[in-house]
Amino acid sequence: MRLTRRYRFAASHRLHTPALSEEENRRLYGKCANPFGHGHDYILDVTVEGPVNADGRLVDRAALDGLVRRHALARVEYRNLNQDLPEFAHVVPTTENLASLVRDLLLDGWDLPARLAHLRISETDRNAFDLEVGRN
Amino acid sequence: MRLTRRYRFAASHRLHTPALSEEENRRLYGKCANPFGHGHDYILDVTVEGPVNADGRLVDRAALDGLVRRHALARVEYRNLNQDLPEFAHVVPTTENLASLVRDLLLDGWDLPARLAHLRISETDRNAFDLEVGRN
Amino acid sequence: MRLTRRYRFAASHRLHTPALSEEENRRLYGKCANPFGHGHDYILDVTVEGPVNADGRLVDRAALDGLVRRHALARVEYRNLNQDLPEFAHVVPTTENLASLVRDLLLDGWDLPARLAHLRISETDRNAFDLEVGRN
Amino acid sequence: MRLTRRYRFAASHRLHTPALSEEENRRLYGKCANPFGHGHDYILDVTVEGPVNADGRLVDRAALDGLVRRHALARVEYRNLNQDLPEFAHVVPTTENLASLVRDLLLDGWDLPARLAHLRISETDRNAFDLEVGRN
Amino acid sequence: MRLTRRYRFAASHRLHTPALSEEENRRLYGKCANPFGHGHDYILDVTVEGPVNADGRLVDRAALDGLVRRHALARVEYRNLNQDLPEFAHVVPTTENLASLVRDLLLDGWDLPARLAHLRISETDRNAFDLEVGRN
Amino acid sequence: MRLTRRYRFAASHRLHTPALSEEENRRLYGKCANPFGHGHDYILDVTVEGPVNADGRLVDRAALDGLVRRHALARVEYRNLNQDLPEFAHVVPTTENLASLVRDLLLDGWDLPARLAHLRISETDRNAFDLEVGRN
Repeated sequence: MRLTRRYRFAASHRLHTPALSEEENRRLYGKCANPFGHGHDYILDVTVEGPVNADGRLVDRAALDGLVRRHALARVEYRNLNQDLPEFAHVVPTTENLASLVRDLLLDGWDLPARLAHLRISETDRNAFDLEVGRN
Repeated sequence: MRLTRRYRFAASHRLHTPALSEEENRRLYGKCANPFGHGHDYILDVTVEGPVNADGRLVDRAALDGLVRRHALARVEYRNLNQDLPEFAHVVPTTENLASLVRDLLLDGWDLPARLAHLRISETDRNAFDLEVGRN
Repeated sequence: MRLTRRYRFAASHRLHTPALSEEENRRLYGKCANPFGHGHDYILDVTVEGPVNADGRLVDRAALDGLVRRHALARVEYRNLNQDLPEFAHVVPTTENLASLVRDLLLDGWDLPARLAHLRISETDRNAFDLEVGRN
Repeated sequence: MRLTRRYRFAASHRLHTPALSEEENRRLYGKCANPFGHGHDYILDVTVEGPVNADGRLVDRAALDGLVRRHALARVEYRNLNQDLPEFAHVVPTTENLASLVRDLLLDGWDLPARLAHLRISETDRNAFDLEVGRN
Repeated sequence: MRLTRRYRFAASHRLHTPALSEEENRRLYGKCANPFGHGHDYILDVTVEGPVNADGRLVDRAALDGLVRRHALARVEYRNLNQDLPEFAHVVPTTENLASLVRDLLLDGWDLPARLAHLRISETDRNAFDLEVGRN
Repeated sequence: MRLTRRYRFAASHRLHTPALSEEENRRLYGKCANPFGHGHDYILDVTVEGPVNADGRLVDRAALDGLVRRHALARVEYRNLNQDLPEFAHVVPTTENLASLVRDLLLDGWDLPARLAHLRISETDRNAFDLEVGRN
């Protein structure tokens, strides 16, 4: 069985690669390359997988929430991804790269009996990024 | 009859008043005062009011969309409200103040036979700001 | 107190005025004038107003549902508005005109102690039409 | 300007009037009269109205959340409305009556400069109850 | 091809294991252990899989709806899961256990040519439980 | 990694097989067989899969949007599926068959480095059709 639990966070970013000229960045990322950045209300869906325990639950909700909050949300919410996160000092903070970072942050801190199975980050109501997480 | 038409835009902002100390800003605005800002996917609902014309419509959708785009969205979408908009050079860009600005921008450019009746700006799925617009 | 109850129906329509040429219809209604029509999943929100009775309710839900179903939904759901409804033989079935028709159909059949206060018809997730209903 | 802020709570209730027989209760409330009750995830939208302050805000969000939590949510969330609330010892806990109770609870505890303007309680995605609140 | 069809039902439950003390139940389930229970509007998504028939359909919608209604919804909707369902006399009615029960109920009654492939039960908008169903 | 991007289109259809009598069509498709058709607002979710490029993206959004628009949406939006599409001259335009057509249209035009992995078409908020797409 899998449980998917939903979290939300607001952050800002700018899509811009220092290796390219302003004009190339503009061609590549359009208005997302505007110099002062813009933002989103991201939705993060965390899916865990495992057997149901004697208490009828797949995972302790409070433990899962605490882990997600400490290891992922505390790093990104109300943040400017480009300027507040060293991981994005030389990597462009697209939602693809943000999804990979959140997976790594969660795996680093993971100490629950159920395994982390899947992540989805939605940016606006039109784009969602899915990452299946291998055995952990 | 009233027609409410929905638009969306992404922007970033920082809640911070230069008149106050960092500590006071932090107490007042919490994490929304983080120095590099954060962002939202705003939803803008524009309500127009008027009689239904012979062609069965309250307002020409393309004309309304063009007006909203030129006079409001072009100013705010993919922008950093604090740094890209001179109107927020000395005014804190809360969603309350953003709603007032969008109303002023729309009224300045309004040239449709139907009148602008109401504005709603939603920031995340938990906060919505409503402004009834007087005779125009 | 007001209760708003939500109904849904699927229908098709074509925006086209016989008084105008094909070219003028196309200019006025765009792709909505395509000759064979297109369709929508409409959402109808019916708002009733009145005092709360001794049984703790503003209106009997089953009675309201029956009235809406018999007098409005039965006329429009799974219908082609242009060809199935005599009311649209000479009137273009825009959502504005559909909202007025639904109000008239409901008022004609209204036999509930609570009054009909408001109607909203949403066509796609971007357009909603509101009609405040006077004393009845 | 008005701000509407959204809260959610889960509760259970049974629609049943001791003054009536089982059969009459069943006729009146249908399956909602089942003896052991059932439940809902209610959505509570609280609307406050007032001028925008020098800090760019209509109301302090933390103060509003604290008031709503202490005076309303703490009374109803994860509760059985019939058995946990003395207010429903002799009053049937329909959503109409729940809306009136929440309004009274909020007005009793109200100590914010902005006034309480409106309440909406939604029970399932098909029924919403609106209460305009007079001067307070 | 897969078709996912959505159903909704309201029910109440209490998370409580008689094998544990009140204090341990409280520590384990938090406010969900409140003695008189609380409730939810559950969303049930039933996914069937199979080839598309000559009539252009994967499954007859009326047959699927009838089966889901008779074998699953009729057992749980407007019910108190703890007190109305013998299956939960000695099993705590968490949504995990409810999902397993609904799968068993559907498999017991399954008589459609398309196979039952997947179930999802959502409890509030933050938690969803997924069960992939093996060959049947 | 997978990206799912959402598109919407309005169209109309009639469920009707010329090989059957009116009465048999009615028995099979119910009100969906009404002679003049009805319509829906379809939601199309297109999922692409592939590695993340040096620019931090899985696929160029503008290229994907252009491909979906030219090869799929341009054929179906604001159309009567039965009368405007030769593919449905002898095939009943159920959403199952529409999903297969959209997959074929996208595969025919596919020229992106990321592969087309999955399609979902939702018709009303109760039915969604999923097609996993094999290697391409």
